[in-house]
Amino acid sequence: MQGGRGDREMTDRYIVGVDLGGTSINVGVLPYAGGRVLGMRSLPTEPQRGAKFVVDRMIELIRAAMKDARREGAIPDDGFIGIGIGSPGPLDRRTGTVLETPNLGWRNFPLRDLIANAIGLEAVLDNDANCAALGEFWQGAARHVRHLVGVTLGTGIGGGIVVDGRVFHGASDLAGEIGHMTIDSTGRKCNCGNYGCLEAYASGPAIAARAVEGLEANGNSLLPALVEGDLTRVTAETVYEAIVAGDLYAREVMRETANFLGTGLANLINLMNPEMIVISGGVTRAGGHLLGPLRTEVRRRAFRGGFESCEIVTSELGGMAGVVGAVATYKVERCGGL
Amino acid sequence: MQGGRGDREMTDRYIVGVDLGGTSINVGVLPYAGGRVLGMRSLPTEPQRGAKFVVDRMIELIRAAMKDARREGAIPDDGFIGIGIGSPGPLDRRTGTVLETPNLGWRNFPLRDLIANAIGLEAVLDNDANCAALGEFWQGAARHVRHLVGVTLGTGIGGGIVVDGRVFHGASDLAGEIGHMTIDSTGRKCNCGNYGCLEAYASGPAIAARAVEGLEANGNSLLPALVEGDLTRVTAETVYEAIVAGDLYAREVMRETANFLGTGLANLINLMNPEMIVISGGVTRAGGHLLGPLRTEVRRRAFRGGFESCEIVTSELGGMAGVVGAVATYKVERCGGL
Repeated sequence: MQGGRGDREMTDRYIVGVDLGGTSINVGVLPYAGGRVLGMRSLPTEPQRGAKFVVDRMIELIRAAMKDARREGAIPDDGFIGIGIGSPGPLDRRTGTVLETPNLGWRNFPLRDLIANAIGLEAVLDNDANCAALGEFWQGAARHVRHLVGVTLGTGIGGGIVVDGRVFHGASDLAGEIGHMTIDSTGRKCNCGNYGCLEAYASGPAIAARAVEGLEANGNSLLPALVEGDLTRVTAETVYEAIVAGDLYAREVMRETANFLGTGLANLINLMNPEMIVISGGVTRAGGHLLGPLRTEVRRRAFRGGFESCEIVTSELGGMAGVVGAVATYKVERCGGL
Repeated sequence: MQGGRGDREMTDRYIVGVDLGGTSINVGVLPYAGGRVLGMRSLPTEPQRGAKFVVDRMIELIRAAMKDARREGAIPDDGFIGIGIGSPGPLDRRTGTVLETPNLGWRNFPLRDLIANAIGLEAVLDNDANCAALGEFWQGAARHVRHLVGVTLGTGIGGGIVVDGRVFHGASDLAGEIGHMTIDSTGRKCNCGNYGCLEAYASGPAIAARAVEGLEANGNSLLPALVEGDLTRVTAETVYEAIVAGDLYAREVMRETANFLGTGLANLINLMNPEMIVISGGVTRAGGHLLGPLRTEVRRRAFRGGFESCEIVTSELGGMAGVVGAVATYKVERCGGL
């Protein structure tokens, strides 16, 4: 660490991690040196109630988490050094501004300083997928790995590139947008306006949409029954439930998902040759139904040497990756490294 | 520079650069501090005559280039500090071994040490596309750019990623294989065995193949006349000649090429967010016929912020990029940086 304080002085210091998602806000506290998350708190984001509501809720959660952590960890009042915030992007790290988030409806929103001023602690802001990848490097599946790519599968598909313990941000903080890699140049329309993006095939909503589209030709599927005939209610979760119930069609939908995702990961490997790819998000609950065909497709498409030197694993931190990674981001940005 | 010698001592030192390609071998000498290439020599590779022939020819060219450079630059006999070699890959930089080159027919070939021992100078080996990208950073189009990707368009499509003055090699020296990025997961078969690779659409041979395939439906094209009716002789060069002669079909083939390439570059931008992409190779002679529609397609597919922060330019070093870049590679590997 290259910050202004010595390591010894830092050992009794704590950092707040905030994970802002489209669905929920998670907040926790970690010791400077890492370890167990203290004071973990979570509430729904409810973005439809407006930006002020969301920010107030974040502040309320941070205060509550700090209070709980103080008690759990016997932390003195001046034991907190700062706040790391992971947010959907794209964003400007220098100014701490969220430039655009379709899921929250924000534009050019000065999130970092609103939080920092309300709490009275210095804050840093980074992309949620970047934070998750850095969290896996610090305390998760990618400990001791020099070069990893984290892939978050959810409403969208995000990515974070970590090289030598730091996030690779690129020229304008936009590196890692794996979800918007074209894998089929004349393919499905994506929310971003482009055609054939990975996200248009393998995000949660895309999996659900493909499942519903194929139902007509697969009359035996259990999917309609699982949503009481209301196909608008099919989600990636429903597809997973159908697989567990033995539905062959749902299994086939997941196999196709694995193929699309495998194409994207093979591109990643051929381009970046990482030591590890860490996949996170609800879809990973499909386990072997996803990972088996995924590895097969990556092996088929990537260079052999690149495939062989890349471990493909699922997240160890799960839902905690965002909070742990936000703390890690603060450490890297303000304390010189992990 | 962090090597064993002081900068002052290095100013009168020289490094040999070797650019081994499937078609020709180029060799030149550069001063440690950069500048004009001295003693430039070039001969066809003629790989069909065997590995020993090619290596002997490389050694002969290196000796001749050093002799000429000594005279041109008034270099003392002990003025040479080492040799940088750029070779088709994949290769193992640590052992200096070329692992596999379809174009040369080599496998596990200890190229670096054969050259180093014959000349009596230390040598380093890296991928030719990596060398070209580093050359553009050192003395070409990407001077003062922190983060660039070089794309070489030829018999294959190669890529080199440069970050903060160093090549990004990945876990096993395979990073940057842009040509084998899938852009159409059910598309054209590639030489690598995969389907829908960028190289299967936009390499020289792929451009020629697509041009010939579409001829039947485009009877007015000048292409058949340019090869005296022997369509096996159509090359990317022929397509370019037809464009110059005003052939609308050839122009359309180049526009399609630009679209495929644009999809690949948009993927690069969304994933790596570079400040600059430097394109090199014969196809860039098509100039605006390629670059105009290329930029349009990249704008259409990449994130706006990523597109706006990325200059897309053609090589400044042209055919010299390999030699200049091989010298740059030696400097980075053995002298601590450029």
